[in-house]
Amino acid sequence: MIKIAPSILSADFSNLIQDIHQVEEAGADLLHIDVMDGHFVPNITIGPLVMHSIRNKTKLPFDVHLMIESPDRYIEDFVKAGADIITVHAEAATHLHRTIQNIKSFGVKAAVSLNPATPLSALDFVLPELDMVLLMSVNPGFGGQKFIPIILEKIKSLRQMLKERGLDTDIQVDGGINLENAKEIVQAGANVLVAGSAIFNSKDIRERVAAFRQIIK
Amino acid sequence: MIKIAPSILSADFSNLIQDIHQVEEAGADLLHIDVMDGHFVPNITIGPLVMHSIRNKTKLPFDVHLMIESPDRYIEDFVKAGADIITVHAEAATHLHRTIQNIKSFGVKAAVSLNPATPLSALDFVLPELDMVLLMSVNPGFGGQKFIPIILEKIKSLRQMLKERGLDTDIQVDGGINLENAKEIVQAGANVLVAGSAIFNSKDIRERVAAFRQIIK
Amino acid sequence: MIKIAPSILSADFSNLIQDIHQVEEAGADLLHIDVMDGHFVPNITIGPLVMHSIRNKTKLPFDVHLMIESPDRYIEDFVKAGADIITVHAEAATHLHRTIQNIKSFGVKAAVSLNPATPLSALDFVLPELDMVLLMSVNPGFGGQKFIPIILEKIKSLRQMLKERGLDTDIQVDGGINLENAKEIVQAGANVLVAGSAIFNSKDIRERVAAFRQIIK
Amino acid sequence: MIKIAPSILSADFSNLIQDIHQVEEAGADLLHIDVMDGHFVPNITIGPLVMHSIRNKTKLPFDVHLMIESPDRYIEDFVKAGADIITVHAEAATHLHRTIQNIKSFGVKAAVSLNPATPLSALDFVLPELDMVLLMSVNPGFGGQKFIPIILEKIKSLRQMLKERGLDTDIQVDGGINLENAKEIVQAGANVLVAGSAIFNSKDIRERVAAFRQIIK
Amino acid sequence: MIKIAPSILSADFSNLIQDIHQVEEAGADLLHIDVMDGHFVPNITIGPLVMHSIRNKTKLPFDVHLMIESPDRYIEDFVKAGADIITVHAEAATHLHRTIQNIKSFGVKAAVSLNPATPLSALDFVLPELDMVLLMSVNPGFGGQKFIPIILEKIKSLRQMLKERGLDTDIQVDGGINLENAKEIVQAGANVLVAGSAIFNSKDIRERVAAFRQIIK
Amino acid sequence: MIKIAPSILSADFSNLIQDIHQVEEAGADLLHIDVMDGHFVPNITIGPLVMHSIRNKTKLPFDVHLMIESPDRYIEDFVKAGADIITVHAEAATHLHRTIQNIKSFGVKAAVSLNPATPLSALDFVLPELDMVLLMSVNPGFGGQKFIPIILEKIKSLRQMLKERGLDTDIQVDGGINLENAKEIVQAGANVLVAGSAIFNSKDIRERVAAFRQIIK
Repeated sequence: MIKIAPSILSADFSNLIQDIHQVEEAGADLLHIDVMDGHFVPNITIGPLVMHSIRNKTKLPFDVHLMIESPDRYIEDFVKAGADIITVHAEAATHLHRTIQNIKSFGVKAAVSLNPATPLSALDFVLPELDMVLLMSVNPGFGGQKFIPIILEKIKSLRQMLKERGLDTDIQVDGGINLENAKEIVQAGANVLVAGSAIFNSKDIRERVAAFRQIIK
Repeated sequence: MIKIAPSILSADFSNLIQDIHQVEEAGADLLHIDVMDGHFVPNITIGPLVMHSIRNKTKLPFDVHLMIESPDRYIEDFVKAGADIITVHAEAATHLHRTIQNIKSFGVKAAVSLNPATPLSALDFVLPELDMVLLMSVNPGFGGQKFIPIILEKIKSLRQMLKERGLDTDIQVDGGINLENAKEIVQAGANVLVAGSAIFNSKDIRERVAAFRQIIK
Repeated sequence: MIKIAPSILSADFSNLIQDIHQVEEAGADLLHIDVMDGHFVPNITIGPLVMHSIRNKTKLPFDVHLMIESPDRYIEDFVKAGADIITVHAEAATHLHRTIQNIKSFGVKAAVSLNPATPLSALDFVLPELDMVLLMSVNPGFGGQKFIPIILEKIKSLRQMLKERGLDTDIQVDGGINLENAKEIVQAGANVLVAGSAIFNSKDIRERVAAFRQIIK
Repeated sequence: MIKIAPSILSADFSNLIQDIHQVEEAGADLLHIDVMDGHFVPNITIGPLVMHSIRNKTKLPFDVHLMIESPDRYIEDFVKAGADIITVHAEAATHLHRTIQNIKSFGVKAAVSLNPATPLSALDFVLPELDMVLLMSVNPGFGGQKFIPIILEKIKSLRQMLKERGLDTDIQVDGGINLENAKEIVQAGANVLVAGSAIFNSKDIRERVAAFRQIIK
Repeated sequence: MIKIAPSILSADFSNLIQDIHQVEEAGADLLHIDVMDGHFVPNITIGPLVMHSIRNKTKLPFDVHLMIESPDRYIEDFVKAGADIITVHAEAATHLHRTIQNIKSFGVKAAVSLNPATPLSALDFVLPELDMVLLMSVNPGFGGQKFIPIILEKIKSLRQMLKERGLDTDIQVDGGINLENAKEIVQAGANVLVAGSAIFNSKDIRERVAAFRQIIK
Repeated sequence: MIKIAPSILSADFSNLIQDIHQVEEAGADLLHIDVMDGHFVPNITIGPLVMHSIRNKTKLPFDVHLMIESPDRYIEDFVKAGADIITVHAEAATHLHRTIQNIKSFGVKAAVSLNPATPLSALDFVLPELDMVLLMSVNPGFGGQKFIPIILEKIKSLRQMLKERGLDTDIQVDGGINLENAKEIVQAGANVLVAGSAIFNSKDIRERVAAFRQIIK
C-alpha cells in the first residue's frame, strides 16, 4: 500500500494541531516531521518540544526526519517526544550502522535518507537493517522546491537493488511531490510519499489528500 | 519601567497563538523567543518558520534569543520572520562587534547575552553599541531550572559598569525567575525579566503576569 | 578539441599579469585558478581579490578550482570576481546538488572535482548537471607533484560512464601533467589539461604551451 | 598464512607488558593497538606514550589502528613510537591517497579501515597502494561487541575485488571474532584476525591463542 | 597542608601499577591523571580504560585532568573509571557553569584549569562552585617543559582573589615544577603541586617525593 | 618613532611588486600582509606563495597578520616565505602562549591581535612575551571600513597597562586609519599605523605616505 506523509514543514505553526487534525481526518498515514538544526541544512525548524506538544493530540504515527549533524546525540530525545520512525542522513553519520542500531534499540523504526547527490552505494551494507529508505528529491532545507527528475532513476535503481536482495523495504520520497508527478514516482518504486506545500498550501487539505490517494492507488 | 518577557519555551506549541494571546492580554511587554540549534546548546527548539507563523497574529514585540553557533548566518532570516530585538551570545561570536552591527543594519535592536560563567569583561568594548544585555541566570538549553544566586552580583556589577559609562542600557535576566526572587533581581539592577515555566505552567496565566507586575513595580 | 589550462599556482605572483599575458599569447584556453583555504587542503593560496585584480587585464576564461570547505559561502564572491567556470570538490559539499545549482544560478559553468581516492560513484546522480568533471591526479595542495598512474584508469572509466549516458562532458585532469604523459592522458579520455610547473617553470612559456598543443592535437 | 592480532583494547593496562608477553609467547603474529581520540569514536584509549613504553619490551610487530580524526597530524608520532603498520579510517581522511603516501614515506606499512556501513567503493582507487585493508565487523569504539553478519559478504566481495585486480593484499577483520566464527571469517577471505576479549578475557591466554590457531589453520 | 600530585604522564606505562605503588608508598597525596584527546592539545595519552585498570590497585585519590574538547561527553565515563576530582579547561567549555554542575552531580570534586595565557577573569562567576583551580604553568600537551615565570604572579593574584571572597579553594599548579622552584610556587599561594618528570624520571622516586615534601612543608 | 605599515589588502595584485616598490620608495616602514583563510574571517586573500614571490624584490620588513584559524599549522610556512613579524589573533589560539613561543622559536617577532570586541584581559599573561600588540579598529575581513571610535579608549588603556608593567611594546592599529584620524590614534598611544585604502587608493602613493608621515611625526 502507498502511504501519504504530509510534511509539517508547510503546516501553520501558530495552531499546529488544527492542521494536523485536518490531515489526520483526511486519511494521511504518517506525519512527516522535518527537524533542521541550521548546521546540516541551512534552516532551523523545530525540535523535540514542539513534537512532544502534539504527541497526545493525534494518533498519526510520527515519521521524524532528522536533518541534523551528529544525530546520535538527539535520538533518545526524539523517542521520548513520541517518534515512531526516525530517519537519519547517511551524510551526517560517520558510524551509520551504530546510529541505526541506536534507533532500533529504543523500539522505533529506523530509516536512512540520502541527499539527491549521494550514491546508493552508501546503503550497500546497511540495507537489511532498515525499515525505510528516504530518497530526497530536493536538497533538504526548505519547502516549495521542484522535484529533481534524476531521482526517478534513483528510485528505480533502489527498488531493483532491494528486489535482488529479497527485501521489500519502504522507499520514501521527499521534495517537490505534487498531483502531477505522484503517479510516476510510485511507478518508479516509491511507496511512501511526503508532501508539504502540495497539501498544506491547498485550499482544502482534506480534498487534496483524497486527490493524492486517488492518483496513487 | 520593568518589562516582563514571557518565554515561549514553556508555551504550548500545539496551539501556540492561544498561549501568546493570553500573555499579550495579560499585559506582557515582550515575547521572548528561545531559538536553539542543538549545537550551541544541547536542545533544538524552533526557528524562523515558527516565528513567522505567529508574527501577524500578535502585537507583542519579538525578543529573539539566538542560542545558536555562528549567528550571523541567520540574522536576516530572523529579521524577515519578524524580530524586534535580536540577542546573540558573546560565546558564539568571534567577531561580536560585526555581529552587532549586522543586527543593527536591519533596523532592529541588538543585544548580547552572557552565559552564567562568562565574565563581564566580554562587554568592555561593545557596551555602547547595545540596546540590551541579557545575563543568563541558568545555563541555557532547558526550561524549569533554578536561578543561580551569584548572578545577582553579576547584575549589580553590570548596572554599576553601565552607570560609570553614563549608559542606561536594558539588563535582561533569563532563567529560574519566579514570584519569590523577581523583586531582588529587579533591585539588583535588572529591568527586563524573562519568565517561562513561572508563567506558562501556572493555572491562570493572566493572573500570574499580574502578580509579577505587582511584585516588581 | 583539447584545451590547455595553465595553473596560476606556478605563476610569478609578484607580477601576475605578466605571466598571464604570456600564456594568453601562447594560446592557452583557460586560466586555472587554484583557490586554497588552508582547511580543505594544507595550503593557502589566493582568493577573490587577487582574481579580481586581473579580470579586466586578460580575456582568458577563468576556470576557478575551489579547494575550500563549505564552498557555497564563497560562490557569489568568485562570480563577482570574474569566474567563468567554478569547480567544487565533492568531498567538501554535503549538499553537492544544491551547490551545483547555486553555481549555475549565476550563469557560470559548474564542475565537480574528485580527489585521487574518491570513487566515481560520487558523480552518479549529478553527472547530467555538470559542464565538467575535474579528476585530480595528485593530492591537491601543492604544485610540482608526480602524476598518480591509477588516474589513467579513472579517466577511462569516467569517459565510459559518460558515453553510456550519452554525455560528452569535459574531463579535466590536474596534477603532474607534463610533455611526457600528456598524450596518454588525452588518449584515456581527458580533454582539458591543467599544467602548472610544466608551463610556468619552463624557460620559454610560449614555446612550452606550443609543445603541449603539438603533443595532444 | 593466517595471522592472529590480539587487540590491546582488552588487555590489563595496569601491567600491560605482562599481558603482551603472554600473547607473544603464545605465538600471536601482531599486536593490534587501538588508538581512539574521543572524536572519531566515542571513547579515548591510548596514544603514542603508552605505545612507546612497550616498544622495547616485545618483538611483536605493532599494528596501529588509528580511530582518530585528521590522522595525518599524528602519523609521525606513531612511527616514532614504534609502529610497523598504520591503519587509518577512510571516513576520517579527506585526502586518503595523501595519507597513505604519508604513512609509507616513513617506511611502515599502510592500511585503510572501513566502518561496517562504508561501501567498498571507498577503496576503488587506493587498493594497489595498500598493504592491508581492515574491515570493521563492529562499530569501532568498544570491546566486547557482536560480529555483524553482513561483514562476511563484505569480506568475500573485497577478496573477489582483489583477485580481479591481481592483488593479494591482507584482509584484516576486527570486532566480535571468537572461536565460533573465526573459521568462516577466514573462509570468506580474511587472513588477519583481530581478537580482543576472546583472547585477553580468557582464563588461559596461551591456550586461547593456540585454539584460534588450530581453528583457522 | 601542601599536597603532592605525581603526574602519570611521566610514569612507565608498560607497568603502570608498579610506578604508582612507588609514589603511593612514598607518600604522594593524589595521582594526577593527564587525559589528552589530540584535539584540545596536540597529544593523545590515555582514557577511562587505562584509569579503570588501576582503580582497584591503589588507594591514591584520582585527580583527573581532562585536556579534551567538549568534556561533558566524557565526565560520566571518568567517574565510573574512578575519578575523585575532575578538572576541565575553561577554554574547552562553552557552558562552564553547567559542566561544573555536571561533575558535582556525580559526587566528585570539580576543578577548572586555565592555560598559561587565559586571564583569571574566566573564573569570576564560577569560583564559589569550585573545589580547586588548576593553573597551568606550561602549555599542556607534553611532559618535561620549563615553568613559565609569569605564572607566579598569576598564583598570587588568584590567592588574593580567593581571600577577598573569603574562599580557601585549592590552587593546583602543573608544569615544570622541580625541587628548585617548588618553594616559591608554594609561597606564591599554591597548595597542590603536580610533578611529572621531576618525580618519575628520578633514580629514586621515594626519595624524590620525600625531598619535595621537605622543601614545601 | 611612529611606523607606517601599508596594507597589501588594498594593493593591485595584478602587479603587486610595482605597488610595493612605490610604498617602499615613499618610505613605508613595514609591509602589512593580510592573510585570510575564509574561516576565521569571511574572506580569502593570500598565503605563503604570494608572499614568497615578493620576498626577494623588496627590503621592506614583512609584518604578517594571520587572520586564520589554528595558526600554529602555518607559522613555519610563513617564516619560510619571509615573515619578519607574525601576528596571530587571540580569538584563534586556544594555547596562545605556545603559539607565541612557536613564532619566536623561528627567530621572528611575535604579536597578538585583538578583534574590536575582545577585552584587553586577553593579554594579561602574555604581554611580556610580545613584540607588538595589534588592536583591530574594524572587524577584520575587508578593506575600506570605518574606524570604530571606542578603539581610541582601548589604545589608551593598553598603553597605560604597558606603562604600569614597565613595557614599551609596539601598539599597532589596523582599520579605517586615514589622514583625518591618524594623529589622535598616535596621541592615544599607538605607534604602528596600518593603512590600506588610504594609501593604495590614493592618486599619488608616495605623496600620501609623506602626508601620513607629516601628520604623525
